[in-house]
Amino acid sequence: MNSYALTLTYNGAGFSGFARQKDPAIITVQETLEQVLTTVLRLDAPVLTVCAGRTDAGVHARGQVLSFELDGPALDDNQRRQVLLSLNALTPASMSVKSIQLAKDGFSARFDAQSRQYHYYIYNHSSPPVFTKDFAWHVPKKLDIDIMQKAAQDLKGEHDFRSFCTAHSATEDKNTVRTIHGIDITKCTILGEEIVVICITGSAFLHSQVRIMVGTLQEIAAGKRSSNAIPQMLSALNREAAGVTAPAHGLMLYQVDYPESCFQEIGSSRD
Amino acid sequence: MNSYALTLTYNGAGFSGFARQKDPAIITVQETLEQVLTTVLRLDAPVLTVCAGRTDAGVHARGQVLSFELDGPALDDNQRRQVLLSLNALTPASMSVKSIQLAKDGFSARFDAQSRQYHYYIYNHSSPPVFTKDFAWHVPKKLDIDIMQKAAQDLKGEHDFRSFCTAHSATEDKNTVRTIHGIDITKCTILGEEIVVICITGSAFLHSQVRIMVGTLQEIAAGKRSSNAIPQMLSALNREAAGVTAPAHGLMLYQVDYPESCFQEIGSSRD
Repeated sequence: MNSYALTLTYNGAGFSGFARQKDPAIITVQETLEQVLTTVLRLDAPVLTVCAGRTDAGVHARGQVLSFELDGPALDDNQRRQVLLSLNALTPASMSVKSIQLAKDGFSARFDAQSRQYHYYIYNHSSPPVFTKDFAWHVPKKLDIDIMQKAAQDLKGEHDFRSFCTAHSATEDKNTVRTIHGIDITKCTILGEEIVVICITGSAFLHSQVRIMVGTLQEIAAGKRSSNAIPQMLSALNREAAGVTAPAHGLMLYQVDYPESCFQEIGSSRD
Repeated sequence: MNSYALTLTYNGAGFSGFARQKDPAIITVQETLEQVLTTVLRLDAPVLTVCAGRTDAGVHARGQVLSFELDGPALDDNQRRQVLLSLNALTPASMSVKSIQLAKDGFSARFDAQSRQYHYYIYNHSSPPVFTKDFAWHVPKKLDIDIMQKAAQDLKGEHDFRSFCTAHSATEDKNTVRTIHGIDITKCTILGEEIVVICITGSAFLHSQVRIMVGTLQEIAAGKRSSNAIPQMLSALNREAAGVTAPAHGLMLYQVDYPESCFQEIGSSRD
């Protein structure tokens, strides 16, 4: 039995989220990938995968990581390259497998992850975007990015983020304490369109946490809320205290980091 | 009678090129924009536009410029802002009007243009792109970008580009001499995907010239042609001497520059 890590990029628009659903008519990233993987590896039983971040419907991923186990001898470099080519020949154009690596025994894309980095893209101009319209939230009203950057610092560190997750997911006994390592807000040009990039890194995130943080920061940057409102929102421990949930299509699971030890002992390097 | 300059962004995928066709069933950028412009301005007769670069089917534009004339008093800043909002409410999502400016009398987006800048995007990885698939040419074979950059310098300056335009457009009496001001090849990351950007600036271009130059450079960078083959291709004055035509969807008309005098006398600044 060997463990593998697969890195996957996908456009979330065509999928009802990452996670497999009971109803097979609902098309998810996980089910689509698992079916192709089972075909390419000629397995009798469907392969089962575990992911680093269960992205919601419409959310994109550049660097989603999936772990799975296979019986038999470990696939060598050449075999894995061949599997990679076959996977990309069979998956839809909205999906691309970037790498397959051997991992340490019992590797879990979910539990071994050290940190997860999300990007949120905002197009802040009065006229609509064309090339980034499927990947960025169009906010026509002028945002003050300096104020947004300053307010964002109040979200850094360890907090109870109960106000910043979907109410139905935060049952009373659920631990809603999480740690945000960093939030950086920069501007960049994507295909000639100027985009505000909100880069958020943390150990793990609650359901819709990034989108509610971004929606709140957007309201602050638009002047709808005070620039020092975040500490009070955090201490309220109530979803209604925070701002709107930013739309799914602006969010991307950008990168997941693991300890070197998950891969190095078996002589494989991540790309 | 006043002259105006309109800056337009569009995704070329949904259009049969820029230029209006005789058959009204063929959807073009020009016809789509002119119809909306005529509606918004409540004109009796359709407005007629002239463009800076007649892009082919599938080619994108970030900064296409159109000129047109209107009877009556000049539209002031507020009126132009209102027209801009109305245009963007009525045009399809694959199109966005960026600005409308007053220009000097008789301004022509075509004849007053000083230089035109095109970008060509290549995704050079074995696995396919996801987020840039509609805007970049996927070349799986490894390209040597240093060799590409060096070879590109042979295209700079004034040359007869008869070998680098579609054969049927180069009739014997046609002047096929053009000047390339610069070709810069860089790498950048677009939505997490590493892209080779070929930025080409020139006074004007022949039909398919940029795409044939890029297709030729790609063959050189892939080792299919010698790195010093371009001078011979130029002197052959024959389309068959040059390389393939790169696909339309990787090309974007990025920016068109005009002398300040086209706008400054009427106190309007371009954005």
